Amino acid sequence: MMEYSAMNRQELEQAYREATQHLESCKVQHLNLNMARGKPSKLQLDAVSGMLEMVKTGEDCIDNGIDTRNYGELAGLPIAREYWADVLDCKAENIFVGGASSLNFMFDIISRAYTHGLLHSERPWCKEEVVKFLCPSPGYDRHFRVTEFFGAELITVPMTVTGPNMDVVEELVKDPQVKGIWCVPKFSNPDGFIYSDDTVRRFAELKPAAPDFAIMWDNAYCVHEFSGEYIPFPDILSLCEQAGNPDMVYEFASSSKITFAGGGFSAMAASKANIDYITKLFGVQMISNDKVNQLRHVRYLKNKAHTIELMKIHASFLAPKFQVVFDTLEQQIKPCGFANWYEPVGGYFVSCNTMPGTAKRALELCKQAGVEMTPAGASYPYGVDPQDSNIRIAPSLPPVEELEKAMDVFCTCLKVAALEKLLNQ
Amino acid sequence: MMEYSAMNRQELEQAYREATQHLESCKVQHLNLNMARGKPSKLQLDAVSGMLEMVKTGEDCIDNGIDTRNYGELAGLPIAREYWADVLDCKAENIFVGGASSLNFMFDIISRAYTHGLLHSERPWCKEEVVKFLCPSPGYDRHFRVTEFFGAELITVPMTVTGPNMDVVEELVKDPQVKGIWCVPKFSNPDGFIYSDDTVRRFAELKPAAPDFAIMWDNAYCVHEFSGEYIPFPDILSLCEQAGNPDMVYEFASSSKITFAGGGFSAMAASKANIDYITKLFGVQMISNDKVNQLRHVRYLKNKAHTIELMKIHASFLAPKFQVVFDTLEQQIKPCGFANWYEPVGGYFVSCNTMPGTAKRALELCKQAGVEMTPAGASYPYGVDPQDSNIRIAPSLPPVEELEKAMDVFCTCLKVAALEKLLNQ
Repeated sequence: MMEYSAMNRQELEQAYREATQHLESCKVQHLNLNMARGKPSKLQLDAVSGMLEMVKTGEDCIDNGIDTRNYGELAGLPIAREYWADVLDCKAENIFVGGASSLNFMFDIISRAYTHGLLHSERPWCKEEVVKFLCPSPGYDRHFRVTEFFGAELITVPMTVTGPNMDVVEELVKDPQVKGIWCVPKFSNPDGFIYSDDTVRRFAELKPAAPDFAIMWDNAYCVHEFSGEYIPFPDILSLCEQAGNPDMVYEFASSSKITFAGGGFSAMAASKANIDYITKLFGVQMISNDKVNQLRHVRYLKNKAHTIELMKIHASFLAPKFQVVFDTLEQQIKPCGFANWYEPVGGYFVSCNTMPGTAKRALELCKQAGVEMTPAGASYPYGVDPQDSNIRIAPSLPPVEELEKAMDVFCTCLKVAALEKLLNQ
Repeated sequence: MMEYSAMNRQELEQAYREATQHLESCKVQHLNLNMARGKPSKLQLDAVSGMLEMVKTGEDCIDNGIDTRNYGELAGLPIAREYWADVLDCKAENIFVGGASSLNFMFDIISRAYTHGLLHSERPWCKEEVVKFLCPSPGYDRHFRVTEFFGAELITVPMTVTGPNMDVVEELVKDPQVKGIWCVPKFSNPDGFIYSDDTVRRFAELKPAAPDFAIMWDNAYCVHEFSGEYIPFPDILSLCEQAGNPDMVYEFASSSKITFAGGGFSAMAASKANIDYITKLFGVQMISNDKVNQLRHVRYLKNKAHTIELMKIHASFLAPKFQVVFDTLEQQIKPCGFANWYEPVGGYFVSCNTMPGTAKRALELCKQAGVEMTPAGASYPYGVDPQDSNIRIAPSLPPVEELEKAMDVFCTCLKVAALEKLLNQ
């Protein structure tokens, strides 16, 4: 094999014939494979189902005199607040424990910002002429969609291996209409980059023009290493406080990829002043979250150290799958030289940048061959990748043998799409 | 004893001395009693804690091929939609299953109406000059607060024993700025009235000027008889459909007072068109609700018939408590002739109308004597009862012997406040 860029037309045509023939041979297998979403596999879920036995009787539901079966504790069961404080390196008073979905929690914060304003807002965001929101891209489509839903203008910030390009961020926040930024600081979605200490420090020291600028710090993969040991990560709350910006950051986490996806519990970490303000607002919308499930989780997960141990079980299922992705790309795509990717050690995704102008076509071919992927462009604001190059691979759900087939199809589709483009130029 | 209105000044002074002396004798007991909120008691919660054993293993989590531990089924697990369809007499396609809080569900509907509009809105409510919302009063303070939170003008509609005064409602909805109404149709909060068939029919046949008028039909106590047999209740969805208003009603229910308070699952019933519209909007804010808890509940509650049987267990704990309320009022207050109340056969409250201008003072006296009640006025828009007369009694939480003490204090405080007023006139 040689790089496509070094091939003459005849060689490209030959490569195209081989790739399309292989693709046809895949199609006749009538595959139905899915690498679209970061869902844990059944084996992972089975491995943590001991959680279901943590609260079996009425007496089990009582914790420190609090009956978790009754109303109360709007900000969360005290031991659940302590648990998340341990995981996120802050104090229990900095934690508000949410429901099963951290996305819903983030949505609620943005929604409240629009309808009522955040702690330091001069007015609700819906009363602003325009609200701009920074979207490091490639990023998480559902983040971007929340701010798009409320009519914000989404501004792309380039991602780098050390996090968002901070020169760009520092420049953009001088605009008072720029109200916040979406971040997945550890194992970024989809690249799996870990923000460098310098990036985190520059975030904490931002001097945005907007007094209510919100860093939406979605620490979704805070303990989600699938390879190697746990990697400590700086605490953004204390860094913001030290930098004189205590109320600028809202950090989120959830147990969706620790225990059950969509059946866990979430948390927001923020300054005491922010927690007090949000608790007042949330007191209008609910009486309390499901504390029985909070208790079930804390009894099972115990603390940060034990959670990190537990994550090694998930790692044992995830690591071989990511290896399939890395190996197949290495063998099938690297020699052709038209795409690049990063090999993360945690998170749920691999982000592949294929030949510009061919991502959509490649995924159309995948679909025809029975392999479903996250739509091309999803990782950019408004679902439009200006390069039409980035594709997110989510290998967690299918068994290894299915994944091998799916990756074979995927790589073949990347080739066919790239060769089509080269031959039609 | 004789009615206060028939007493001369000397007799009133004698009654006042007796009442204050009795109150002082209560105060020295340093009571700490609570009749403020509709919380189930520990014995009720214990009686339904078998629910915790419904889902014990990973295999238990699979229902009809759906792994409840993973993402998916935004509108709810199919059998959970079927369960609520059975309870609320509609079809599964008319059900969206929510999280642990039906209040949060209602809040989300109103919040979406403000930020994006409902199905037939000409514009989001936040773009209206003014939004008016009808509040049958006495009513549920948390309902009123949701619409107040979004800046709606709250308009009081008088409650009657057959439901809101429908002549008033039919007149008010001719104003296109009137966007909706809060209803607790069965065992209304706080009176415990059951809307008559005629009231329900007139609701379904409303011809509001606003195309997006929303009947917020909080059927919180749909199976919550504590005395006598289950009372069937008309299905507002089909009546609205028959009247040509299929999209006008949003019905809510939850298991908070069937299983665990704040730890159950909620549901919204609405037209298929509304469910489709709301599912699209909710798809932005979350991936799915906690389906493990949905499954746990459905396996325990089974269906409507079984749920009604189960509610008899709650009734066995609640009925004696309501009897204490009725008996104490009957014995201590009725002869004095200055207050009235209704004896419901379901729900969680008794609503007492004491001598106008004395409710606040009576509850201040209660507080001094160690008995906490829902604040006077809470059951009216903005927390202001123009008559200062209505008081909500929530007898579910305290044990019978505590309740007897609390009701004795309460009745004494009603008397003292009434006598103070009569003596100072």
